[in-house]
Amino acid sequence: MTATETPVNNGVNVEALLGAKEALAGAPEAAKFTWRAACAWQNGTHSTSTVDSFFGLGEEQKHRTTYSFDADHPEVFASEDNGATPVEYVLVGLAGCLTAGVAAVAQYREIQLRSVTATIEGDMDVRGILGMDSDVRNGFSSIKVTYEIDADASPDDIKALVAQSQKRSAVYDIITNPTNVTVEVH
Amino acid sequence: MTATETPVNNGVNVEALLGAKEALAGAPEAAKFTWRAACAWQNGTHSTSTVDSFFGLGEEQKHRTTYSFDADHPEVFASEDNGATPVEYVLVGLAGCLTAGVAAVAQYREIQLRSVTATIEGDMDVRGILGMDSDVRNGFSSIKVTYEIDADASPDDIKALVAQSQKRSAVYDIITNPTNVTVEVH
Repeated sequence: MTATETPVNNGVNVEALLGAKEALAGAPEAAKFTWRAACAWQNGTHSTSTVDSFFGLGEEQKHRTTYSFDADHPEVFASEDNGATPVEYVLVGLAGCLTAGVAAVAQYREIQLRSVTATIEGDMDVRGILGMDSDVRNGFSSIKVTYEIDADASPDDIKALVAQSQKRSAVYDIITNPTNVTVEVH
Repeated sequence: MTATETPVNNGVNVEALLGAKEALAGAPEAAKFTWRAACAWQNGTHSTSTVDSFFGLGEEQKHRTTYSFDADHPEVFASEDNGATPVEYVLVGLAGCLTAGVAAVAQYREIQLRSVTATIEGDMDVRGILGMDSDVRNGFSSIKVTYEIDADASPDDIKALVAQSQKRSAVYDIITNPTNVTVEVH
């Protein structure tokens, strides 16, 4: 896939994205997306979630295939470790979001990436989820993402790339700002 | 796995969890966990993250196996849809967290579960991530989780089960409250 007419090719189709922006500017309703997952309890703390469809551009959309994910608690919590923990899924989402952004912004800025890796760590005092201390929150006390990026750009330009990805990242926003969640039983 | 001496068995070892609580009450340092993922950019908006180790109970811990996850953007964003989108990973995390909680609380309250399914939807105006309107946030405008639960309990008891799971859920907290995220480039 050739992304632009420059020799820089990170595999991101910037022209298509710019076209989409133009189209959505004239049709803001089409920008309203709904992302979904369906979850089925298996046994104990083990559940399986599937992701296959979403709504956007005014109509139902399908992923190329159905993605399936097992979540569980680890053996140190007396569980069977049949999948990553729910909080690790959040870290995977954040890493994937920022990394996609790095590639997209690099393409837009005509910076050729050679490799991008990140480690991501979330600290948590599990006395929160165990209900042992009401001063301890259930979630992460903080998250740290560390990138190593090999690219045709200066260290400052690479830092600016990551900063811009953060600025436009959906998952970064979801984690750093509050979102209203409604839970119902039918 | 027999969880308690009651006939109720949701596959959750409540006795072990109560034992862990007691142990952590005397050793709060052991409650400090660090969850991790490592992410490698593939091409375009496609990345692969792996989850294999974490820190907790004062030492390095290993999952039973390495879990690997592909994240990508969908074809409507001019990407190749090589995996679920990063925001769908967040929904998977939330669904898995609340569902594990439902099973654990049900076991504790001696409610036998027969089936638990959930659908989870996150609304998003993608003009945010496209940088088209600074009044539109990048993340979800709201998330709705809908449970269907078949269990040996009254509708009110089932609702209370879900409410208690929400109260102790790590991912629910992560999404509904702000968390500090530091992003560095090395």
